[in-house]
Amino acid sequence: MPSPDPTSTAGTLEVLRERLGELDDLRHASSLAGWDEQTMMPPGGAAARGEVLATLGRLAHEKLTDPALTALLDRLGAAEDLGETDARMVAAVARDADRARRVPDRLIADIARQTTLAQVAWHEARAADDFALFRPALERHVELRGELAACFPEAAHPYDALLHNFEPDLTTERVRTVFAELKEGLVPLIREIAAAGPPPRLPGPFPVEQQRILAAEIARAQGFDDEHWRLDLAVHPFAMSLGSSDIRVTCRYDESGLMGPFAVMHEIGHGLYERQVDPALERTTVGTGVSLGIHESQSRLWENLVGRSEAFWRHWHPRMLELFGADALGGTDLAGFLRAVNAVHPSLIRVEADEATYSLHVILRFELEVALMEGTLAVADLETAWNEKTKELLGLDVPSAKVGVLQDIHWAYGELGYFPTYAIGNIVAAQLWQVIRRDLPGLDDDLARGETLALREWLREHIHRHGCLYTPGELLRGATGADLDARPFLEHLRAKYSALYGLTA
Amino acid sequence: MPSPDPTSTAGTLEVLRERLGELDDLRHASSLAGWDEQTMMPPGGAAARGEVLATLGRLAHEKLTDPALTALLDRLGAAEDLGETDARMVAAVARDADRARRVPDRLIADIARQTTLAQVAWHEARAADDFALFRPALERHVELRGELAACFPEAAHPYDALLHNFEPDLTTERVRTVFAELKEGLVPLIREIAAAGPPPRLPGPFPVEQQRILAAEIARAQGFDDEHWRLDLAVHPFAMSLGSSDIRVTCRYDESGLMGPFAVMHEIGHGLYERQVDPALERTTVGTGVSLGIHESQSRLWENLVGRSEAFWRHWHPRMLELFGADALGGTDLAGFLRAVNAVHPSLIRVEADEATYSLHVILRFELEVALMEGTLAVADLETAWNEKTKELLGLDVPSAKVGVLQDIHWAYGELGYFPTYAIGNIVAAQLWQVIRRDLPGLDDDLARGETLALREWLREHIHRHGCLYTPGELLRGATGADLDARPFLEHLRAKYSALYGLTA
Repeated sequence: MPSPDPTSTAGTLEVLRERLGELDDLRHASSLAGWDEQTMMPPGGAAARGEVLATLGRLAHEKLTDPALTALLDRLGAAEDLGETDARMVAAVARDADRARRVPDRLIADIARQTTLAQVAWHEARAADDFALFRPALERHVELRGELAACFPEAAHPYDALLHNFEPDLTTERVRTVFAELKEGLVPLIREIAAAGPPPRLPGPFPVEQQRILAAEIARAQGFDDEHWRLDLAVHPFAMSLGSSDIRVTCRYDESGLMGPFAVMHEIGHGLYERQVDPALERTTVGTGVSLGIHESQSRLWENLVGRSEAFWRHWHPRMLELFGADALGGTDLAGFLRAVNAVHPSLIRVEADEATYSLHVILRFELEVALMEGTLAVADLETAWNEKTKELLGLDVPSAKVGVLQDIHWAYGELGYFPTYAIGNIVAAQLWQVIRRDLPGLDDDLARGETLALREWLREHIHRHGCLYTPGELLRGATGADLDARPFLEHLRAKYSALYGLTA
Repeated sequence: MPSPDPTSTAGTLEVLRERLGELDDLRHASSLAGWDEQTMMPPGGAAARGEVLATLGRLAHEKLTDPALTALLDRLGAAEDLGETDARMVAAVARDADRARRVPDRLIADIARQTTLAQVAWHEARAADDFALFRPALERHVELRGELAACFPEAAHPYDALLHNFEPDLTTERVRTVFAELKEGLVPLIREIAAAGPPPRLPGPFPVEQQRILAAEIARAQGFDDEHWRLDLAVHPFAMSLGSSDIRVTCRYDESGLMGPFAVMHEIGHGLYERQVDPALERTTVGTGVSLGIHESQSRLWENLVGRSEAFWRHWHPRMLELFGADALGGTDLAGFLRAVNAVHPSLIRVEADEATYSLHVILRFELEVALMEGTLAVADLETAWNEKTKELLGLDVPSAKVGVLQDIHWAYGELGYFPTYAIGNIVAAQLWQVIRRDLPGLDDDLARGETLALREWLREHIHRHGCLYTPGELLRGATGADLDARPFLEHLRAKYSALYGLTA
């Protein structure tokens, strides 16, 4: 085979694609190692697996920051005869490569080492229910994140540099504004719902085997097939793509409630995003979801906007009755069942929070993280600040660190800037949903028949197929004509809960 | 952390170990990708997985042939203050690196490409039952193997260079001598057994679920535990190591016979070799089985020398009766059952062959491969030669290519030099077994109690722990005091079948 002519744009592009293919292969190998670690690996394999993941990560970083790659990207960035898709790909890769090059290897190694130490400290602190045991590790993490932020001196706010790891074109300022509006809408809404009295409870039990049957049927209705997907068990459910033709989704089930099937809808939502990326982007680094916030919008859309809607359950409620029996559903009819799966309870634990209160947990973490990075809050005062904010936002007293400041492992990973993406997902999902309902007037009828094809095609067309060719902001504007905006989410919640609980706006 | 001093032997060794760790991590990632491909991957993932495996293989090859690695190996090879284990490790890696460097990248790429083409041709030829459709692809493979052999001009025979990919210190001449002796002993023995009349048959059925229970129990008695092993289903059973603390074994079951449990014993035998390598060799390239022949000796030892012995079944036969019932075993007592699982039937298909006739299938392939490489046999005449040899060695007529020359996929992979390792495994296993029986006089009592610990410890001490620190020949001499020798295998077979069938020697 003749080698590509490296002096032409087409030849340079071919050389670039070879390098991107290699990077994507390393990512694939790494993702597989991670998937296996959480689903299949015998416990004895953990130490060796850690080394493998570190090596694959280091090789990928070396290849992304290779000056030869930079030279190719520079040459193509200046080329005038590049098609639009290729130009977007080159720009996206150049952004990633630039970010990777700006962080010194020494700092990456320091962060990796600190992450290992901090996890041990977090586990010890949590077991002892004593934040003080985690404090030194977190202080060092905050310090290292400060060094990381300093690698991007052009950022308007030190927290921007962290946020940009997950949301490349959002600013701290914008998130602050949007979250303020969100908080202002949510707090009174949740109070009104509480005043309407407690919703019905579903007594269960929901045997695990029946839940798996239900979850598998719903997954198929969302687009799951055996040719391109797997659904396995994992302690912490997640979705992972090994290329758009091999999507791995995981779940766990607990017979006391229906978290399992909702978690499957959520993860299939993530998986479908990866599954529907344009196959032309295979074996590049841009053939994947563009940001965590957009990714979360896809999972939340299926979990909440589809999966907690009346239309959806018109189809699936009879199947629930068949599988679990009327007693497990507490004798509820469809309306009662909907009130139950849309129950709102302010609670201490984020991962157990409902659709309405969830974002408040995120806002709490965002405000604390920003203050830590600004230096207006010391790690020493974090637990007190956490408890005060919990009272302010959720109206709850925190009895212990375990169910408060030590509940999530994310800070042990040093992952500041990550939490906001969860609430951004809720916000974006509602923005998309508003447009989808306008574009697909027959959507409720589809859902009531167990049909989702038109919805999936809409998502493919407006979000999924583009991979990373557009920034999250461009993608959102392209699909909805708007920037990040909390109002559609607040409107959706108010409308839904008003109908369910008879609130008066 | 201070960097190692690269001017000292200890410092150079540390740098070498980092590089070997990286190579081992790539092998681990690659093995995992292969394991997943055969056990878990949805079919849609195949194309992307092929790319990932190619990239990981290419990166490992680049790193093994890196001049900086050669320089480290040269410096350490000349160092006088290296301990014996490290010196052996350096020598073993240097041999691998030398072999890898001697084959030009162009030839590796040609072979890889031809392997893809030849597999397609083989599948088509097999479906059409027409060797002519595979002939051109195999001709090209033989040509490329000739080029490969030419990279090692010091070899006494062109086939040596191929054999050395799997058995680093065996020669074609030696294999020819040993196989000639083996053939001379096997052909009359098999004739005598046939004259003794047909053995009892086990009518079955053997439900798959019960076989899985039996196989899992036997596996545990061989050393399987949930902390370090997995046992999964695969179309073609295999064992794979992801480091000595993560061993993956696979199997398949067919309710018409007991191939499944015997295949599990075989694969656990492979797995145990990897499991018992000295942990000090972790994250090097020498912490794995040293050759395919030695590996196969471990699997055959458990499958045949343990797994078809009277002592073993004194423990497990009652459990068989419990699981499958007396009717499935055709009402045989222990003696009858042993005759049945030690039945000898010359047959056309290698993978279905019994302990006695199996090696003849291998000798047939070895003789044909050597003639192809010597140029004394043309691919055009291969089918005729195959059929003649089948008549000579097994006394059978070959009705069609599908059950003759096209039965195995190995030649489509271009893998000449690989088949002999299967018979070498049988031979080595019997050589080891002779010494083991002398060293462990209580072995039969152990097996009759379902106990294998002393046996496993013997194998760890004499074979497993050494990884690749000794060549196969050194290892065999160290454990048995002898070179490769067919006589113990022939003696074992004659003694066993004489007892079972009342042959007169």
